[in-house]
Amino acid sequence: MTTKQKGNGASRRQFLTGAAAAGAGAVAAAAAKASGPDPLITEMQDWASSTGAGVDATPYGMPIQFESDVVRRNVEWLTADTISSINFTPIHALDGTITPQGCAFERHHSGAIELRKEDYRLMINGLVDQELVFTYNDLERFPRENRVYFCECAANTGMEWAGAQLNGAQFTHGMIHNMEYSGVSLRTLLNEAGVKPEGKWVYVEGADASSNGRSIPLEKALDDCLVAFKANGEALRMEHGYPTRLVVPGWEGNMWVKWLRRIEVTEVAVESREETSKYTDTLANGISRKWTWEMDAKSVVTSPSPQAPIKHGPGPLVITGLAWSGRGAITGVDVTLDGGKNWQKARLAAPGQSKALTRFYLDIEWNGEEMFLQSRARDETGYVQPTKNQLREVRGLNSIYHNNGIQTWWVKANGEAENVEIS
Amino acid sequence: MTTKQKGNGASRRQFLTGAAAAGAGAVAAAAAKASGPDPLITEMQDWASSTGAGVDATPYGMPIQFESDVVRRNVEWLTADTISSINFTPIHALDGTITPQGCAFERHHSGAIELRKEDYRLMINGLVDQELVFTYNDLERFPRENRVYFCECAANTGMEWAGAQLNGAQFTHGMIHNMEYSGVSLRTLLNEAGVKPEGKWVYVEGADASSNGRSIPLEKALDDCLVAFKANGEALRMEHGYPTRLVVPGWEGNMWVKWLRRIEVTEVAVESREETSKYTDTLANGISRKWTWEMDAKSVVTSPSPQAPIKHGPGPLVITGLAWSGRGAITGVDVTLDGGKNWQKARLAAPGQSKALTRFYLDIEWNGEEMFLQSRARDETGYVQPTKNQLREVRGLNSIYHNNGIQTWWVKANGEAENVEIS
Repeated sequence: MTTKQKGNGASRRQFLTGAAAAGAGAVAAAAAKASGPDPLITEMQDWASSTGAGVDATPYGMPIQFESDVVRRNVEWLTADTISSINFTPIHALDGTITPQGCAFERHHSGAIELRKEDYRLMINGLVDQELVFTYNDLERFPRENRVYFCECAANTGMEWAGAQLNGAQFTHGMIHNMEYSGVSLRTLLNEAGVKPEGKWVYVEGADASSNGRSIPLEKALDDCLVAFKANGEALRMEHGYPTRLVVPGWEGNMWVKWLRRIEVTEVAVESREETSKYTDTLANGISRKWTWEMDAKSVVTSPSPQAPIKHGPGPLVITGLAWSGRGAITGVDVTLDGGKNWQKARLAAPGQSKALTRFYLDIEWNGEEMFLQSRARDETGYVQPTKNQLREVRGLNSIYHNNGIQTWWVKANGEAENVEIS
Repeated sequence: MTTKQKGNGASRRQFLTGAAAAGAGAVAAAAAKASGPDPLITEMQDWASSTGAGVDATPYGMPIQFESDVVRRNVEWLTADTISSINFTPIHALDGTITPQGCAFERHHSGAIELRKEDYRLMINGLVDQELVFTYNDLERFPRENRVYFCECAANTGMEWAGAQLNGAQFTHGMIHNMEYSGVSLRTLLNEAGVKPEGKWVYVEGADASSNGRSIPLEKALDDCLVAFKANGEALRMEHGYPTRLVVPGWEGNMWVKWLRRIEVTEVAVESREETSKYTDTLANGISRKWTWEMDAKSVVTSPSPQAPIKHGPGPLVITGLAWSGRGAITGVDVTLDGGKNWQKARLAAPGQSKALTRFYLDIEWNGEEMFLQSRARDETGYVQPTKNQLREVRGLNSIYHNNGIQTWWVKANGEAENVEIS
């Protein structure tokens, strides 16, 4: 049967229009032609009987064994020891926009900790009318909000600055996830404590040994930040900050403090390690940019890509990827097959939502020749995703963080893809 | 410290307005008052050291051990054997709208089967210009769509017709989930085969031993149905139909055929077992309603509920639940504390989306007295969720399917809740 599947002969009909039309046609060719019902029915019967009786579901269902490669991965040489670690979302194998918690990237500086709800406390102190400590049950008594947001590590794609050319979207762009959060507005809790007029910042820290303290301007803290209990409906995974984490929409992931323990209202920024020696961007002249919190508009083609090669010959091909912006909604994504000479408008699976992932598609008729695939995102502020070289011209080569440059995949005639740079 | 947490004294401030204001106040009281920073800081230090160094995340992250009760459950006496089984989503413990695949309800008639993508075939036959068989790779070459839809079993809440009064929202309303699906429009595949003018229905069947064949009017098949590969971004779990399942938005879950194997275009409905002896609604006069595909507007309070009792005294209380309609978007949800004498407008976490779950909240100041909690949904067609007795008056007591009657939780002064009926 498999041999019969291989594209033999051209399409007999053209129901669909445009690129998809040619596509559908060729797919029809690729699909087996039924020479009368008998061979088909026979195969169906063999197959049905071969499946036989099945099994029951488990109380908490895991992915089927055939998908065991769709997991978070680390870059072996990236971290010195396993206690200061990171892993990447397998975005090359996912579709849609929601990231399941089980394969959502995760970064910790002193390990993920097991914190019981009964032991959990959240303190608000500093420049407030009254210092407060909340239990988990206290937090559950405040009005809740639900919203889908992306969380991207500032170092996502960082190794590409100097041209590491890691071979897969999971490794170049996998330090991102997109989940539906449920929790309490940080504004609600700060208002409860009463912020004094001289309060201009909040310093947030976690209960892990690193504490990962970060300073956030009061304006942002009173805007759209959440103290989240749940992601995609269920409790946060241990490594995502159970029982609560801070959600700082559109801003770099390091500020999304996990195992949230304390919120101190201060007059000035604390200038902690995580916002001075780390998470600052050193320019060519040696001066470092700081307070680079917002994640710039960015996109990447997730398939085809090095980990998701084309498995068929010429004809219809679905090109897909993700786009996002920390400044609002994605308004458009362009895709090029020839390294930027010609751009086509991609189809957004749904209108862009502010500070959340947007899925895009481009359905083409692949001629079977090599392609230099790129995607370019545009957000509601009018900002357009730059090339890597445009970024380097402005920021030099010392940077690690905030690389939102356009990614190139060299897709060869045999369907395999490589991470390359073109000038 | 824990004793210090217990509500001592009234709120010192009223930042928030309305019910939330009183709520916030009482929560402030419940939270510990800081008598100088020392005791707090001391506790924080003990606690930070007690957490110590953590561990790394696993390639595929499972829920933390403390959440081991948030799993799918069966009603022991419900099914005769384990090969014809069902399990329920723990909606009492979830928030937001997305259901994680791992705890999403699942029903199968002959067990869940393990089907490899390489072995998978989808046949389209019957009244078409050309019969076709697609491999999984063929399907991936057609244009894809993404959309969030709820899937509810027609038998959800069915045992309440005769007043089973199962003690928990998981058991009364847990045969539902809500996921973001990615796949190919069924319309695209039918157009590829070419539906003949005399084709008026499609008969869809799965690859499991039950085949679970169902007839679907061609209008619906050409409207919004999907052949889905993925749910919430990742491959379908085995028990959800890996590698593909049919998505029939707004219609009863039994039609969402899993392990989708064949789509036959027919002139008339097949009248299979699953749409005659099963999934029809026998009225008081013995006549059965058939083709009752659409799921009527419905809602339920998920917390507080029998499995999610109130764990605190009088004061701020978050009442939350889910609402949905197979006919379009939810436009409003009302909640009553006194069994229907007085209704209050609940807050929708986001505007209702067509054929998807909507999360609602009502933030109240609980007086500590017993409540008879109910919720009532309204959809964009103007339809209002009826009481159980209104349903019984029209359909009698023989029905099993399509019970969308208003649910009552008797919440006692001690915070515990029971499933009751009030006339």
